[in-house]
Amino acid sequence: MKKTRKLNRNVAIVGAGMSRFGMYRDRDCRDFFSEAFQEMMASIDKGLDINDIDAMYLGNFSNDFFVHQAHWGPIMSELLGLVPKPATRTEGACASSALAFREGVFAIASGFYDIVLVGGAEQMSRCATEEVAEGLALATFPDEGLAGFTFPGVFGAAASAYFDRYGATRDALMDITIKSHNNAPLNPKAQFKVSIRDLMNAKIEKAEQLGRPVPEWDDEKAFLWDPKANPMVAWPMHLFDCCPISDGASCVLLVAEDLAKQFTDDPLYVAGIGQGSGRGMSSKPDLTYFEATRYAAEEAYGMAGMTPEDVQFAEVHDCFSVAELIHVEDLGFFKPGEGYKAIADGATRLDGPKPINTSGGLKCKGHPVGATGVSQMVEIWSQLRGIAGERQIPNPNLRIGATHNLGGTGGTCTFTILERR
Amino acid sequence: MKKTRKLNRNVAIVGAGMSRFGMYRDRDCRDFFSEAFQEMMASIDKGLDINDIDAMYLGNFSNDFFVHQAHWGPIMSELLGLVPKPATRTEGACASSALAFREGVFAIASGFYDIVLVGGAEQMSRCATEEVAEGLALATFPDEGLAGFTFPGVFGAAASAYFDRYGATRDALMDITIKSHNNAPLNPKAQFKVSIRDLMNAKIEKAEQLGRPVPEWDDEKAFLWDPKANPMVAWPMHLFDCCPISDGASCVLLVAEDLAKQFTDDPLYVAGIGQGSGRGMSSKPDLTYFEATRYAAEEAYGMAGMTPEDVQFAEVHDCFSVAELIHVEDLGFFKPGEGYKAIADGATRLDGPKPINTSGGLKCKGHPVGATGVSQMVEIWSQLRGIAGERQIPNPNLRIGATHNLGGTGGTCTFTILERR
Repeated sequence: MKKTRKLNRNVAIVGAGMSRFGMYRDRDCRDFFSEAFQEMMASIDKGLDINDIDAMYLGNFSNDFFVHQAHWGPIMSELLGLVPKPATRTEGACASSALAFREGVFAIASGFYDIVLVGGAEQMSRCATEEVAEGLALATFPDEGLAGFTFPGVFGAAASAYFDRYGATRDALMDITIKSHNNAPLNPKAQFKVSIRDLMNAKIEKAEQLGRPVPEWDDEKAFLWDPKANPMVAWPMHLFDCCPISDGASCVLLVAEDLAKQFTDDPLYVAGIGQGSGRGMSSKPDLTYFEATRYAAEEAYGMAGMTPEDVQFAEVHDCFSVAELIHVEDLGFFKPGEGYKAIADGATRLDGPKPINTSGGLKCKGHPVGATGVSQMVEIWSQLRGIAGERQIPNPNLRIGATHNLGGTGGTCTFTILERR
Repeated sequence: MKKTRKLNRNVAIVGAGMSRFGMYRDRDCRDFFSEAFQEMMASIDKGLDINDIDAMYLGNFSNDFFVHQAHWGPIMSELLGLVPKPATRTEGACASSALAFREGVFAIASGFYDIVLVGGAEQMSRCATEEVAEGLALATFPDEGLAGFTFPGVFGAAASAYFDRYGATRDALMDITIKSHNNAPLNPKAQFKVSIRDLMNAKIEKAEQLGRPVPEWDDEKAFLWDPKANPMVAWPMHLFDCCPISDGASCVLLVAEDLAKQFTDDPLYVAGIGQGSGRGMSSKPDLTYFEATRYAAEEAYGMAGMTPEDVQFAEVHDCFSVAELIHVEDLGFFKPGEGYKAIADGATRLDGPKPINTSGGLKCKGHPVGATGVSQMVEIWSQLRGIAGERQIPNPNLRIGATHNLGGTGGTCTFTILERR
């Protein structure tokens, strides 16, 4: 990419909401999206007449597979009373709603629309675990499927390559898992609201109560190294390196920057957007970085006129712990091969210099795949507005946050920089 | 809708291509899309360096279901050598690629990109017919599925309502079928290249050869009224009212209007775009029109500053014959209840005053659902450029054509007006 990309008209976020993430077999995507929409409506300081919404974009990966229903654009349009306004579904695997967000930005920047609802939803928990794995595998590249790769295998291979290149070990992945599990209990929407330490202590306590042999875990890492507590999935990926199966929805309201103050005195501005595509495993030039993420980052930083140093915190796609590790390097937060050292030093903790996944990340907040991209923006909204409660980043000058979303095995990646002025 | 919508930057088509449509069990979407892309590249008068393509949008309904593979954006990006440029899939059932087209327009009009490839692809024929019906039913509204409706049933109900309201009969549908079957043999890409008359005569000839009772069909309508020749599917929809199962792909190259002359001295301009959403059967206010189509038309005519009279010819979504009938009224080409009379008078024939579906339409050209929307634009491109061969509309002043694409049971509809200046 040579040129710096700009929008003809800038765009702001004036409302944001998300459903609780979890497994809800007795509810469906309409329930989740309605929950997110209600919260978003309540968050718009000066209110919104929903008749003023011009259009809607919805990210969904494959409810086709998971609940045997496609064509969710008009279903959601009807649900919210937006008919006959246009409603478009975007799909980019686990980055589906980040794509919805981007199309909403384009639709407004084009001048055609002023007010656009963007969001995402997915219902995964009605399937058995094996079925979910089969459904998710629809998003791998054909060559990967033919070779027998599913997602843990692909990301396990990436971790192996990273370890080999830079000398990291599973300790590096554990630092990420422990950090995410520390943040999640502070997020009321998160699926797993428990720290590794509390989980470990609970298991010790239970063993004591039952009179069973008490595990000798000195600390969280001893717990994570114990294959009984943290069994292998696809080496070196163990159970606690993998995000869960989740249901949920998220949405934000996008408006033209020139109209933003009609809705709030405190909008969030879309400073930079970027998106890239990547190759399948058989033709990836290198497993220790994601080509699509680097391209997306370059595009977004270029538009924003910012550098990685300007981004104070970020939600980074951690479908697996190693994904967060590699991406914080791809996004320029740390140099290649240096990320794991910085993480070990606490750089990405809630009180560190570059907090990553304050929400708990996909690992603990949950990962209803179509909802994830926009849910990351909801977290940035909460942090920048200072309404993140117990997990609020302890920095009174918080101004710039970013989201990174990945689809498939790196086939689709996005990077979005949001700014409070 | 109150306001007239405009783009900040206008957009032109400078190249167009499509694969043959048909059933090709031994080929897949990559083959189809590659075929379409090659034809598109060859159609760009002054050539294109594919490295100059900034982004790609691909419409696909549910290869998730049909061939158990989702996330086609990066698959096609890798196929064409576009990695790491972004590639986004859109889904709006049978209108999926019309949505890709619209997002490509927005991406350019936003100022972010200059040159965007948009297209669509679908592979349906690997499934058994019953499976295809099941897959397509993913695009109905949940209430319709619960009530047992599949597509022929929904459109059959619409036809019944239309007949009841306006006094039309199956004759009206037959006029449409006969016209489409007359156009298709003139289209080398069409799936069914045979007129009803030739089909009828072939059957008569065969009966004579075999010494069987020779059917007494005086004309095409007698053939279509014969339930042995044209069995019922869902009253009043009979076999020849329904489009086939198809595979195929299509694409066009969109560029900013200010750059168009770099690619050709004869671009096609995007004069108007429109999209709407609709409701499920249980809450549709009326079955004799499509709310989403009317909204899309209003949006597109408004942007173009045009009226239905200005549109000289159109490709109109005829998944079922009745869909074409209702839509030519919704688009304002004929008044409600008047369409079938005008069609009976030949108004929509190739040599009539308002030719509709010169390509043969979905009925005969074929309907690989994700490819259809953009394939309609390929037909407009061919007609406006005067390269439509035997099916060229006999009007030396052809300047404005339009495409109408419908998804699901009217959940998503688009209308696009293209102009040669």
